[in-house]
Amino acid sequence: MFLVKNSNGTARRGELTTCHGTVQTPVFMPIATAGAVKTLMASEVTALGASVILGNTYHLLLRIGEERMRALGGLHKLMRHDGPILTDSGGYQVFSLSGAKLSARGGSASGGNKTDEDGVTFQSHIDGATLRLTPESSIAMQQAIGADILMQFDDVAAGDSPRERYEDAMRRSLRWAARSKIALLTTPLPSYNPPPHLFGIVQGGTHEDLRAESAKGLVDIGFDGYAIGGLSVGESRSDTFRIAKATATMLPVDKPRYFMGGGMPEEIVYYVSVGIDMFDCVLPTRNARHGMLFVWKDDPSISVRRAFELAQQGASDVDIADTLYEKMHITKSIHAEDLSPIDAWNTGAPTSQEFSRAYLHHLFKADEILGLRLATLQNLRFYLRMMEELRACI
Amino acid sequence: MFLVKNSNGTARRGELTTCHGTVQTPVFMPIATAGAVKTLMASEVTALGASVILGNTYHLLLRIGEERMRALGGLHKLMRHDGPILTDSGGYQVFSLSGAKLSARGGSASGGNKTDEDGVTFQSHIDGATLRLTPESSIAMQQAIGADILMQFDDVAAGDSPRERYEDAMRRSLRWAARSKIALLTTPLPSYNPPPHLFGIVQGGTHEDLRAESAKGLVDIGFDGYAIGGLSVGESRSDTFRIAKATATMLPVDKPRYFMGGGMPEEIVYYVSVGIDMFDCVLPTRNARHGMLFVWKDDPSISVRRAFELAQQGASDVDIADTLYEKMHITKSIHAEDLSPIDAWNTGAPTSQEFSRAYLHHLFKADEILGLRLATLQNLRFYLRMMEELRACI
Repeated sequence: MFLVKNSNGTARRGELTTCHGTVQTPVFMPIATAGAVKTLMASEVTALGASVILGNTYHLLLRIGEERMRALGGLHKLMRHDGPILTDSGGYQVFSLSGAKLSARGGSASGGNKTDEDGVTFQSHIDGATLRLTPESSIAMQQAIGADILMQFDDVAAGDSPRERYEDAMRRSLRWAARSKIALLTTPLPSYNPPPHLFGIVQGGTHEDLRAESAKGLVDIGFDGYAIGGLSVGESRSDTFRIAKATATMLPVDKPRYFMGGGMPEEIVYYVSVGIDMFDCVLPTRNARHGMLFVWKDDPSISVRRAFELAQQGASDVDIADTLYEKMHITKSIHAEDLSPIDAWNTGAPTSQEFSRAYLHHLFKADEILGLRLATLQNLRFYLRMMEELRACI
Repeated sequence: MFLVKNSNGTARRGELTTCHGTVQTPVFMPIATAGAVKTLMASEVTALGASVILGNTYHLLLRIGEERMRALGGLHKLMRHDGPILTDSGGYQVFSLSGAKLSARGGSASGGNKTDEDGVTFQSHIDGATLRLTPESSIAMQQAIGADILMQFDDVAAGDSPRERYEDAMRRSLRWAARSKIALLTTPLPSYNPPPHLFGIVQGGTHEDLRAESAKGLVDIGFDGYAIGGLSVGESRSDTFRIAKATATMLPVDKPRYFMGGGMPEEIVYYVSVGIDMFDCVLPTRNARHGMLFVWKDDPSISVRRAFELAQQGASDVDIADTLYEKMHITKSIHAEDLSPIDAWNTGAPTSQEFSRAYLHHLFKADEILGLRLATLQNLRFYLRMMEELRACI
């Protein structure tokens, strides 16, 4: 169940209820790709302020498999996460990880992948084994994981596809949306899995009319929430912003809206300002492992509000970013003797107050795993704190 | 100051006072090679029951250097460790890491290293740069680190050296011991460094008469504690045991005795039984990162006492090991669906109670960094718990 509690312009402040707890939106969902938010225990992610985390069906399918996941009693138990879990459907990973990109020429086949009306045959990026996902098998795997929020299986077109490919992929995704819903309704849940939500995914590339057709088709089927898929895949940021904003207006006001796979802090602030409620992105965790930290420029209780207002006023993404953070590249020698804390403003990440930039610099230079942890804690808390402040703006 | 509080046979229960706190002996010191116990924060190591940790002068010299270490205010501040720190002198790393092993032919020169009466010239194992350590520069670096317990700089002979090489290295180490003590007494400490202890290192390979000469020479100079060096470097375990036991009897009863760089749990139980007080070893942390866990066979409050009694009775190391632990290779498929905790007996490592063998297996198979952490916490706690139980036996 989703409740819009407040609004500010088109931005919404909501509450999404799941069987593993209530999620305050707008929300950022840290990514536990293969059953762990990289370097962290679930309890540490929760302590940073996360509620719902995201598990990747593709990775868990390849690494654990459906049968074993059922034997293990699902992901909550395995990784010791008591809060909600959202799973993607695997559609995007099949497209992005498994062999080459899907062919833009009708999407029928490309290096390692073959999409037909029934599903996708693909090669494992780990051992090259041939595997297959269909709407039904994706839902079955997501049920085995025990997700609280399941995503429909979708057909993802590459970012530079011709219009016909977007049209085909969007219409196929609609048919697969219906099949995903039927699969969920007709397949018995594992005993450990309380009744979950199912979200549809709006496709259609950067074509507003295709997005509108997709949104209408999904609403006709009826879902617990609606995701905006197929963005942040190579198109220009102005296209992403335009389509995200337009698509948000096409979706029911009483259901959560989820922007999949994006993005930088300034993007999320913008998406929130146009009424999107849920986000996931690898950037905070992946950048952390590469030594790139998001560091507050100012007290976030002030700067996030300023950024939010800039977004509402249609300011440029560069200006919004500039208000929020500096990118700190911790391996630069300028940090070698800097005894100031990693980020004094980033309260809620105790390690960012406790440890110095000099120590983090040293840990990265010496290839110490602890450095990856401290950077991950900083960046995840940055994102989660930003969401807290955004919620306070609405 | 060291106080022997109790004894059981030749085993001693002691208390070593430092300016950063009192250490209960026998003690195991986790190794923070380059300013971090691998994967862990200092506070986590303390929470496992560690008091004193070990920093490697060689690694900190290469990675940070003396001048910068002083500018940073020492290692306690950098890594946020409030307890005591012991530093080795770099002598062993110069021998083991930098280029090939020292030549056994008089020790004058070998691949990458050149030992003369004044010190050792060696190549950095990181970038091949030519560096030099002397007793004076080693002490200066250890002072810069701000160690509570410093080790003399010593000349380490390879494990298969002829007697003359051991003799030369031992006598040179004695001269370097005197120089190390003079260096500490005559060099002003950094402002952040309270007065430390200095330990001498007994050398002499597997020759009891050389060990006796070394021990006497060191006692004549006078140190706050005495280490047994140059063992666990390739000699047979019966030789190690024989020399460790013999050397312990050569050392003053009122000073701590430190076995450097050893060893497996059954070895430590044996060394404790013959009156050695301090230990360090990479095995728990390094094996953890290779997926090899020490797992209790039985309640350690019972099994450690049994192992200690076996050691006192002169039982074989195999029997002592068999009483204590199983080696669990977590990547084996037998663990893939095992939902039992990593080690139910290993209280004091909450993660070993909380997470299942199946999860740890999965994390290792999926190359998740969290797996390295959970395994490290298990193994370190195993060693630290073993020391707690050994102390309770004495």
